[in-house]
Amino acid sequence: MSEDHAHHDIDNTPRNVVELVINIDDTTPELLASLQDKLMTQGALDVWTTPINMKAGRPAVMLSVLAAPEDQDQLAETILRESGAFGLRHRAWDRTTLERSFTQLDSPLGPFTAKVGHLHGKPIAAKPEWRDIYQLAQQHNLPLTAVQNELAAIVHQHLKQLQDRAEGRTS
Amino acid sequence: MSEDHAHHDIDNTPRNVVELVINIDDTTPELLASLQDKLMTQGALDVWTTPINMKAGRPAVMLSVLAAPEDQDQLAETILRESGAFGLRHRAWDRTTLERSFTQLDSPLGPFTAKVGHLHGKPIAAKPEWRDIYQLAQQHNLPLTAVQNELAAIVHQHLKQLQDRAEGRTS
Amino acid sequence: MSEDHAHHDIDNTPRNVVELVINIDDTTPELLASLQDKLMTQGALDVWTTPINMKAGRPAVMLSVLAAPEDQDQLAETILRESGAFGLRHRAWDRTTLERSFTQLDSPLGPFTAKVGHLHGKPIAAKPEWRDIYQLAQQHNLPLTAVQNELAAIVHQHLKQLQDRAEGRTS
Amino acid sequence: MSEDHAHHDIDNTPRNVVELVINIDDTTPELLASLQDKLMTQGALDVWTTPINMKAGRPAVMLSVLAAPEDQDQLAETILRESGAFGLRHRAWDRTTLERSFTQLDSPLGPFTAKVGHLHGKPIAAKPEWRDIYQLAQQHNLPLTAVQNELAAIVHQHLKQLQDRAEGRTS
Amino acid sequence: MSEDHAHHDIDNTPRNVVELVINIDDTTPELLASLQDKLMTQGALDVWTTPINMKAGRPAVMLSVLAAPEDQDQLAETILRESGAFGLRHRAWDRTTLERSFTQLDSPLGPFTAKVGHLHGKPIAAKPEWRDIYQLAQQHNLPLTAVQNELAAIVHQHLKQLQDRAEGRTS
Amino acid sequence: MSEDHAHHDIDNTPRNVVELVINIDDTTPELLASLQDKLMTQGALDVWTTPINMKAGRPAVMLSVLAAPEDQDQLAETILRESGAFGLRHRAWDRTTLERSFTQLDSPLGPFTAKVGHLHGKPIAAKPEWRDIYQLAQQHNLPLTAVQNELAAIVHQHLKQLQDRAEGRTS
Repeated sequence: MSEDHAHHDIDNTPRNVVELVINIDDTTPELLASLQDKLMTQGALDVWTTPINMKAGRPAVMLSVLAAPEDQDQLAETILRESGAFGLRHRAWDRTTLERSFTQLDSPLGPFTAKVGHLHGKPIAAKPEWRDIYQLAQQHNLPLTAVQNELAAIVHQHLKQLQDRAEGRTS
Repeated sequence: MSEDHAHHDIDNTPRNVVELVINIDDTTPELLASLQDKLMTQGALDVWTTPINMKAGRPAVMLSVLAAPEDQDQLAETILRESGAFGLRHRAWDRTTLERSFTQLDSPLGPFTAKVGHLHGKPIAAKPEWRDIYQLAQQHNLPLTAVQNELAAIVHQHLKQLQDRAEGRTS
Repeated sequence: MSEDHAHHDIDNTPRNVVELVINIDDTTPELLASLQDKLMTQGALDVWTTPINMKAGRPAVMLSVLAAPEDQDQLAETILRESGAFGLRHRAWDRTTLERSFTQLDSPLGPFTAKVGHLHGKPIAAKPEWRDIYQLAQQHNLPLTAVQNELAAIVHQHLKQLQDRAEGRTS
Repeated sequence: MSEDHAHHDIDNTPRNVVELVINIDDTTPELLASLQDKLMTQGALDVWTTPINMKAGRPAVMLSVLAAPEDQDQLAETILRESGAFGLRHRAWDRTTLERSFTQLDSPLGPFTAKVGHLHGKPIAAKPEWRDIYQLAQQHNLPLTAVQNELAAIVHQHLKQLQDRAEGRTS
Repeated sequence: MSEDHAHHDIDNTPRNVVELVINIDDTTPELLASLQDKLMTQGALDVWTTPINMKAGRPAVMLSVLAAPEDQDQLAETILRESGAFGLRHRAWDRTTLERSFTQLDSPLGPFTAKVGHLHGKPIAAKPEWRDIYQLAQQHNLPLTAVQNELAAIVHQHLKQLQDRAEGRTS
Repeated sequence: MSEDHAHHDIDNTPRNVVELVINIDDTTPELLASLQDKLMTQGALDVWTTPINMKAGRPAVMLSVLAAPEDQDQLAETILRESGAFGLRHRAWDRTTLERSFTQLDSPLGPFTAKVGHLHGKPIAAKPEWRDIYQLAQQHNLPLTAVQNELAAIVHQHLKQLQDRAEGRTS
């Protein structure tokens, strides 16, 4: 296992985010999917749709966006201009996040990035980035599930090492 | 409890039905809801939508119709003309149904229709028709849940009487 | 294209609305659909259901209502009386809405209403009212999708005219 | 009908609760179901999942937890440790609840618990506890729907008696 | 309006297709989305997911694939290798499809492709290809909904011309 | 790693199964969840629910059961008796399954069962049984995600050994 080159994102404090939501029964799934992509490229923290039943039996969609407060106005305007919706609702949330570090690890398939999460200063979670699993699977013509399991095993070992170090143990 | 005026619908045999299905990502919930209503008025046995995820992340809808085989062509044409879908798929199902009888019962709120289901010649299920629950609730300005429970209690008593008769017992 | 008879609804400011929600696993879809209708007739701004998984694997429903704050108490009481739910939760939202105008337009199929949305004083969205699409389709025995496209084309032309006027151009 | 031994839970006042939410696209349904169970045993008021579409077309899950404010920190920690999620969002709700009483009632199948809900001091809702319906169905080898209807009829009768008493009428 | 350069895809006859399905509760949304993309690139006619509740309260996913019969084996093998699923089910469907033609049309924003559907030899449906709507919106920095409406209006006009020709009328 | 004690379930051939389905809008999630459990204990191969929109805007449920053909009649009768549904539909599927073997493996947390899947005689998939992940997490008071990753890493190693043996390599 290689040395970790951890970059700490000092992001342990609760943050305010805003959620912007529309219930929409008069546009198409094609448009909504493209709008979801567009909002992500514009810096939304997360964008998702939920199937809902609106009045008159309409099998509709709720589009939700999480954003940093400073991005609220631009994203709201995008939603209103792009979708044809006549209004949207919004409110604030508090967030509790793990502190994140990213590290590059080696594998028999090549190097890849793992994301590690820290709570109260201790590492508690780690996962290989999906984008790297996907790329290595393509590159080596291997099944997604096999590559996912291969990299997850390496990341799991790495996490245990970090946890041992944090506890003052050697592995 | 009043005497039941049962009408037997001799419909105990398995029947073939057909299911017509489209996956649709390029029309609106408004249109799909109206199409669902239209297909019911044209004699579809049942019409429902299911939320699905189509390619490109599209939050789409699957529209399904159950129909008697002799209605398949007309309903297929309606779906294609009304929705703009470019194709539909269909296949047969076998059905196992309870034999149904309908009976009018009295209640403190007025008369209503109950549907009774028979399996192997024995009554096993009964329910008040929702349309009557709704109407009586409107008429008497009572909560839906109260009227539903009132009529369900009466129907339950009626079913037990039918079951006792079938078993040769008096209530 | 006819002259538009626009009525301006001076409603461009963010408004507070309240959302009332119940998670319900002990009543029927029949009742929930009727309750949804009832809440709309009582003045709810919007009512929708969302499929959820509650404890013990229950395939349940979340019922949500958006309402003006002054309607909160009455709608909350309706929900509790009608559904048998033992509690509901509620909170406020801010809303950002387009300013709406309604206008009657002509079409080869007859007159119909279009809704136009304005942002920062400029018209940015317009759509034919679904109720008119549906009625004209019925009246002329035409497919829903054909009538929708016919009226949408006319509304689109109308919107471009409004936008040209707003920009000081003639069409 | 037996005498009711009602225990009043003086809980008619609106309460604050908190909602904790994660959107999760990188763990399995197996794990999420076990986590849902675990959070309930740790005192969450309610835990549910909602199907959502996240970015990149991911058919994901939103996990939501309702909790008393004093339980927020422990449940948040459980979610972060158990699921591998890197963050969660939370906010407060107000609640309006019925005052609850529990009473034991007799039935031909044995005793069972009914829950009664009171609004403004009047009984407005009542239902048999599902756990008892299930147990009696098992015990007597009867269909769930039959036992549910049997007990619901008895509870309905009991509620009417309570309502008559509250109105000063004898049944 | 330009002349149409129609290419007829003689595809009016019902066709058999196969549907391959897995219910999966032990892999992640990340993997399923990538698998959905992969199956489309391998020639599946359609791939979609449906949210389902599996045993033990698992908020799971059903993955469905429509394929030409000759592609069944390869796609089945991909599903089993990539997802870790231990089995899949499959069966045949009949299909009724519109005959399709593709034509290039002009617009103020540039040329784009429209798809036209024919039933019993008559043109009944037409839509602009989403990919072109999206591209022109990007290119001109216009809202998706505006470009969609612009192109749909042109396509609608084109369809009416085709229908008039088919009926022997001049527009 | 310990020696594997593999039991081969010679089950590589496609099998017929039947699917039984009801669309149900007049019973409760409580009852449907209990029915789902009951059908699994009666030997159904799989039971799941899907959220659907039925007529009149009803937010309903589709209950589906996969069964061996010889179990069809008993499970159909259970569904009809327990749910109050008035009919069900059914049809056959073909299945393509991996050949399964079960093996006990060691881990730092204790022994556990892994399931291995074979396609064309080669091992291609392996996973720890969820029941064992859950039990070991409880027993050691460890997070579910940590135990899942620990056991998955061991199973992944075991699978690679099996694959090497199959290819004639030593690890």
